[in-house]
Amino acid sequence: MENVVLKKMREYLGFIHGDSILAPGGSISNMYAVMGARHKMFPNYKKLGLKALPQLVLYTSIDSHYSAMGAAASCGIGTDHVIQIDVDEIGRMRVDKLEEAVLATKAKGHVPFFVNCTCGTTVVGAFDQINPIADLCQKYGMWLHIDAAWGGGVLLSRKHRHLMAGIERANSVTWNPHKLMGTHLQCSTIHFRQDGILLGCNQMCAEYLFQQDKHYDVSFDTGDKVPQCGRHNDIFKLWLMWRARGTDGFEEHIDHLFEMSDYLVQRIKEMPDKFHLIQEPQMVNVLFWYIPERLRDQPQSKERVAELGRITAQLKARMMNTGTLMITYQPIRELPNFFRNIVSNSAVTKDDIEFLLAEMDRLGHDL
Amino acid sequence: MENVVLKKMREYLGFIHGDSILAPGGSISNMYAVMGARHKMFPNYKKLGLKALPQLVLYTSIDSHYSAMGAAASCGIGTDHVIQIDVDEIGRMRVDKLEEAVLATKAKGHVPFFVNCTCGTTVVGAFDQINPIADLCQKYGMWLHIDAAWGGGVLLSRKHRHLMAGIERANSVTWNPHKLMGTHLQCSTIHFRQDGILLGCNQMCAEYLFQQDKHYDVSFDTGDKVPQCGRHNDIFKLWLMWRARGTDGFEEHIDHLFEMSDYLVQRIKEMPDKFHLIQEPQMVNVLFWYIPERLRDQPQSKERVAELGRITAQLKARMMNTGTLMITYQPIRELPNFFRNIVSNSAVTKDDIEFLLAEMDRLGHDL
Repeated sequence: MENVVLKKMREYLGFIHGDSILAPGGSISNMYAVMGARHKMFPNYKKLGLKALPQLVLYTSIDSHYSAMGAAASCGIGTDHVIQIDVDEIGRMRVDKLEEAVLATKAKGHVPFFVNCTCGTTVVGAFDQINPIADLCQKYGMWLHIDAAWGGGVLLSRKHRHLMAGIERANSVTWNPHKLMGTHLQCSTIHFRQDGILLGCNQMCAEYLFQQDKHYDVSFDTGDKVPQCGRHNDIFKLWLMWRARGTDGFEEHIDHLFEMSDYLVQRIKEMPDKFHLIQEPQMVNVLFWYIPERLRDQPQSKERVAELGRITAQLKARMMNTGTLMITYQPIRELPNFFRNIVSNSAVTKDDIEFLLAEMDRLGHDL
Repeated sequence: MENVVLKKMREYLGFIHGDSILAPGGSISNMYAVMGARHKMFPNYKKLGLKALPQLVLYTSIDSHYSAMGAAASCGIGTDHVIQIDVDEIGRMRVDKLEEAVLATKAKGHVPFFVNCTCGTTVVGAFDQINPIADLCQKYGMWLHIDAAWGGGVLLSRKHRHLMAGIERANSVTWNPHKLMGTHLQCSTIHFRQDGILLGCNQMCAEYLFQQDKHYDVSFDTGDKVPQCGRHNDIFKLWLMWRARGTDGFEEHIDHLFEMSDYLVQRIKEMPDKFHLIQEPQMVNVLFWYIPERLRDQPQSKERVAELGRITAQLKARMMNTGTLMITYQPIRELPNFFRNIVSNSAVTKDDIEFLLAEMDRLGHDL
């Protein structure tokens, strides 16, 4: 089941060979990618440990998931050696700044090692531009990892897969079907373009567990490819779902989520007194503030934005106490708290979107 | 739920304060222990990475689980710096050899760092002696980790908890309720005697996920304590089970497993022509060979043992093809393949044990 489903996913990535495995979450997937890259570049590391390596440097955007930082801490690169690259106005890693950072690393005598390119950033849902980043990776000999934990699902939609143009050039890809594809939590995958890296990196050859003299094809024993031993059988949910929905079903699902998000954006724009859209979404992350009555006639200012941030937390508390809505909120960079709505359920209709907006107004108008 | 159950487990460990979390498997738990120990000894490591550390050395017995090796590879210690200590005749780490190895490490200018003491080794089910090992850890300033993934459950039995005497002296303990306690796969826990290490080690302070201005007690947001982000809700099964069975129920369960294993050992000894017990078990791992008719009147010899090893694999294939039995087998050290029977289900009765032995004889007598 794992073989069949993971091979199918690799086809969407454009990986002809390659290897994949399920991991306990996107963060650990990203860690496995760092381990794989390190093993590929420094195969002695497994035996010799940290003394075998020069100082490696990892690049990721300031909007990327914190697990890039976590992987660097766990794997011994150190968070000081994770360079966080600025993003452009829609949240994509700035490729010019990336090259500047690589040159600065080389000038210091350190080794540019790993670029974490995010397809679907957590908050904004931005897609870093794969092709120009892949060009830089090629130029400087760096590993290209795509963290598509959130965005990976768009590959299944002919209409939206252009967001990940160049994906076939990645060395490794994290893709969580439990996100955009709607598989039940948890179902996280990591894919490598080159076969054999996982096994080379993690195999400990525990003879007492992975005997080679069994009476069946032992290549089905995939346990030695990851630092885990016992594993959840998370593939079954995805396999069953794929059988039931088919690829067309997934495509419809993804397209529907985008349509519903577009509808939410359209409705927010139609009520500029009550809602403020923070930016045009690239994906299904819709970022906005709710504006209570007392602030509706005020012009936008630093003070008003700060007040909208406070209102966001207050309105969320009202939602949770009432129990009718639950929308996540967070700050980013210089912006205070705002709502981030994600449509991830096929069953959501335009009526639900209308309810959401009306209910926010009912709960929040007097804040 | 997590707080309640994990606190209760810490009570059985004799940890008055401390902290715990669920992990995706015992191997990752052991890795978290190495990370916690490294963070405690070298708090700068998280920021500075591998350049901040001297060469660390980790000790574990030759019979321990391969994840000690895996953690060393992943965390940058290097498998060359994992010293595998010999075991005594019943599979326990030799404490004299451990001290010798520590002295040799110091003579080299390396740092004795971490002792992985196993309670319930994978194959033999041996319990390393905690107290004398803890004395050495104290003497040389090493972190004492107990890998009780397999054996941890004995703590719930007044009759058998003596196997883990000294457990309260550990710095960290891996304990998988999905093993001896019979919780559904997967349910793995890692415990630290000192509070705050997990958060200090792994926290990345992702503001956009772990906001501090929520309207409830944010100490319930435990996500930032581990390198994972999304996590399986594995505690629910254990919480429910504990509510349903009670502590007495767990005790009865554990005691029953030991009784059934004792019965199997007794029956094997009563049929020395057909079965050969490899060693007296400390726990529920019962190790034995099946002897087919043609080998019954031969004296034990190197050739006969090798032949019994081959027969083990053949008989296992017959079991799987017939579908009536499934008993695991493996080699260890100089011994070829043998059967390792584990009773882990409360519902097993003496009749099942009788069936197991009779069925092996039916399937294997002409091998």
